Amino acid sequence: MERVQVGASKKYEVLIGRNILKQSGELIAAVKKPCRAVLVTDDIVEGLYADKVEESLRGAGFSVVRFVFKNGERQKSMETFSALLDYMAENSITRTDLAIALGGGVCGDLCGFAAACYLRGIDYVQIPTTLLAAVDSSVGGKTAIDITAGKNLVGAFHQPILVICDADTLETLKPETFADGAAESIKYGVLTDAGMFEAFSSGRAKAEIEHIIKRAVEIKSSYVEQDEFDTGLRMFLNLGHTAAHSIEKLSDFSVSHGHAVAVGMVIVSDISVSMGLMSAEDARCIRDTLVMNGLPISTEFDGRALGEAALSDKKRAGDMLSLILPEGIGRCRIEKVRAGELSELFSRSKAVGIRAETD
Amino acid sequence: MERVQVGASKKYEVLIGRNILKQSGELIAAVKKPCRAVLVTDDIVEGLYADKVEESLRGAGFSVVRFVFKNGERQKSMETFSALLDYMAENSITRTDLAIALGGGVCGDLCGFAAACYLRGIDYVQIPTTLLAAVDSSVGGKTAIDITAGKNLVGAFHQPILVICDADTLETLKPETFADGAAESIKYGVLTDAGMFEAFSSGRAKAEIEHIIKRAVEIKSSYVEQDEFDTGLRMFLNLGHTAAHSIEKLSDFSVSHGHAVAVGMVIVSDISVSMGLMSAEDARCIRDTLVMNGLPISTEFDGRALGEAALSDKKRAGDMLSLILPEGIGRCRIEKVRAGELSELFSRSKAVGIRAETD
Repeated sequence: MERVQVGASKKYEVLIGRNILKQSGELIAAVKKPCRAVLVTDDIVEGLYADKVEESLRGAGFSVVRFVFKNGERQKSMETFSALLDYMAENSITRTDLAIALGGGVCGDLCGFAAACYLRGIDYVQIPTTLLAAVDSSVGGKTAIDITAGKNLVGAFHQPILVICDADTLETLKPETFADGAAESIKYGVLTDAGMFEAFSSGRAKAEIEHIIKRAVEIKSSYVEQDEFDTGLRMFLNLGHTAAHSIEKLSDFSVSHGHAVAVGMVIVSDISVSMGLMSAEDARCIRDTLVMNGLPISTEFDGRALGEAALSDKKRAGDMLSLILPEGIGRCRIEKVRAGELSELFSRSKAVGIRAETD
Repeated sequence: MERVQVGASKKYEVLIGRNILKQSGELIAAVKKPCRAVLVTDDIVEGLYADKVEESLRGAGFSVVRFVFKNGERQKSMETFSALLDYMAENSITRTDLAIALGGGVCGDLCGFAAACYLRGIDYVQIPTTLLAAVDSSVGGKTAIDITAGKNLVGAFHQPILVICDADTLETLKPETFADGAAESIKYGVLTDAGMFEAFSSGRAKAEIEHIIKRAVEIKSSYVEQDEFDTGLRMFLNLGHTAAHSIEKLSDFSVSHGHAVAVGMVIVSDISVSMGLMSAEDARCIRDTLVMNGLPISTEFDGRALGEAALSDKKRAGDMLSLILPEGIGRCRIEKVRAGELSELFSRSKAVGIRAETD
C-alpha cells in the first residue's frame, strides 16, 4: 500500500492499494477513535462495496448508519444535502462522530460539504471509487453542491482526515468513466510530469494505476499546499478547464467533466501552437494520447459560443483572465488574456465547431 | 464612535455609535473596495433601515441588490438559505463581492452562513439591529440555520469583516426584544464584570447602552480569541444556557432565547447556593436584576423535564458535561457533572416547575 501525506492547514494521508476496502475500518481507526459513522453512498456503489466497508468498520468498533442517494450529478443538490443533514441529526451523529464518502466525485463533494456544515464541521473520510475522484477530488478539500444557477456554486473548504483509494474498485468502472479520470491524469502529465503522460501515451496506465494515482495526488497536493484557498498558484490545475466548463455548460452537462477537459486541452494546445509557444508535434502527441485513452478531441461548439459561455460568469468583457497554456509535455505557463479575446483565441483551434458526424 | 478590535483567525472591528447607519457605506468602504453587495434583511427591518443603509452604500460606490425575507426564527431555514444563495447567483455576486446582514440574530446567522458557503466563502458585514445580535452574535463567527431536528445544527465558522452597531436602532425594539439582549448582557456581568451587572441592577443600562455593547463585545471576544472553534474556554459563555436550551425546546421555542437564559441563570445560581459556592444574597441580587429588566425568573417545566431535554442530544446519560456555576457577581467556575445528575441538580432550584399563574 502506498501512502501520500497531503497537507494544507490540516495534514492527512491518501492511502492507495489493492483490495484494501476490507481493511477500511482498521485504517480509519488508526486516525480516529471508533465512533458513530454515517456511510454516504449512491445506490450503484452501495450494491458493489457498501457491505464490505460497513463490515470492516463494525469489525473495527465503529457503529454505522447508511445514507444512500440515487446515482447521478443531479443528486449533488440542495435537496439531497438537506436530506443528508436531517438524516445525520435523526441518527444522533455528534460533533465527534464521522462521515464517510464511499463513491465518486458527486458523493465526495456532497458528503464533504455536509460534514463541513453539520454542527459547523465534523470529520470525514473519502473512499473514492472512480479514477476521477481518486486523482482529482480526493485532494484539495473543495466540497460543493450545485444550485440552479450553476455547478459547485455553494460549498466549503473542508479537508478529509483520510482518503482510501482501493484501485480494485476502478475495475468495475464503465470505460467512459475510467476515461474521465484518465483525462485529469493526462492533464497532470501535460502540466508537469512527462513520465505520467508517457504512461498514458504508451498504454501502460491501467497496469500502473496505483502509481498514476500516487503521482496525481502528489502533484495536486503540491499545488494545493502552496495555495489552499485557491487564490493563485492552484489555477495551473485549471489547464484545459476554461473551455471545458463552457463545453459542459453548453451541452447542458451531457458532456462529462473529463471528456470536456480532454477537448479543452486540445484547444489550449492549438492556441499555444498558434502563439509559437509549443510545437505542432507536441500538440499532436497530446491529441493522439487522448484518443488512445477513449477521449474526444473536438466539440460541436464553435469558438465564439465557447468564449461567450466562459464570460457569462464575468462582470465585464474587459476583465482579464488567466489561461494556462502548454509549452510542451510537462511544462505550462499562465497567460493573462482579455476576456473579450477568448472567442478569438478559442476559434484558432481546429477542435471547435466540429459536427459530431465528422468526428 | 467606539471601536473594538475583535480577532481570531481574522481580525475585524466592531464599531459602536449613534446614528451611524447613514455612514455605513463609507465605514464599509474603509475595509472593502466598493463592489457589488447583497443587502440581506427581513421585512420589518427593511421598512425601518434598509433605504438608509442602501443609500449610504450607493453613495460610497457600492452597487446594491436587496434580499428580503419574512421576519421570524422560522426563516432561519434550509429553504430561505437556499433562496438566498439562488438570489446571490442570479444577481451575479462574485467571489470578491459582499453580503451585508441588516437585522437581528436570525438575519446575521442566515446571511453569515450563506456568505460562508456561496462560492466557498465571500466577505460579509453585520449590522445588528437588536441588542441580542449586537452583544452576542456579532462576535464569534458562528453562523447557522435550523433544521427539523434542531436549532443551529447546520452552519459554519465565518468571521465578518466588519460589524456596525448603531445604538439608535435599539430604540425601535419592543421591550421584550430589548430584554432578550439585556439577559445576555447580564450574563456577561455575572460571568466576569460586576460593573456591567451593576449598570443593569441600577437601571442605568439604557442610558449607557453604547458602553454596555462595547464591554459585552470585549468580553465575548476575549473568550473567543482564545478558543475560536469552541473547544474549551468558550464554554464559559454558556452560563445559564444548558437549562435555557431545555426551556426553549420544551416550550417549542415560544420562550425566546434571552428569556430562557434569564431563567437558566436563576437555576444555576440556585444550584451554586445549594452547593455553598455562592451566597443566597448574590442569587437574590441576580433575580432582582433580571426582574427589573423585564425578564422572567421561573419556568413551568420541572427539573426532571429540563434535565431530560438537555440529555436528548447526548448519547448516554453516563456522559460528563460541563455546567457553569456562578460563585458571585462577576465570578464563575466550570463544574463537571454526570449527565444523569442534571435533573436532580435542576430540581434544587426554586425556579422550576412553577405554573404561570403563580409567577
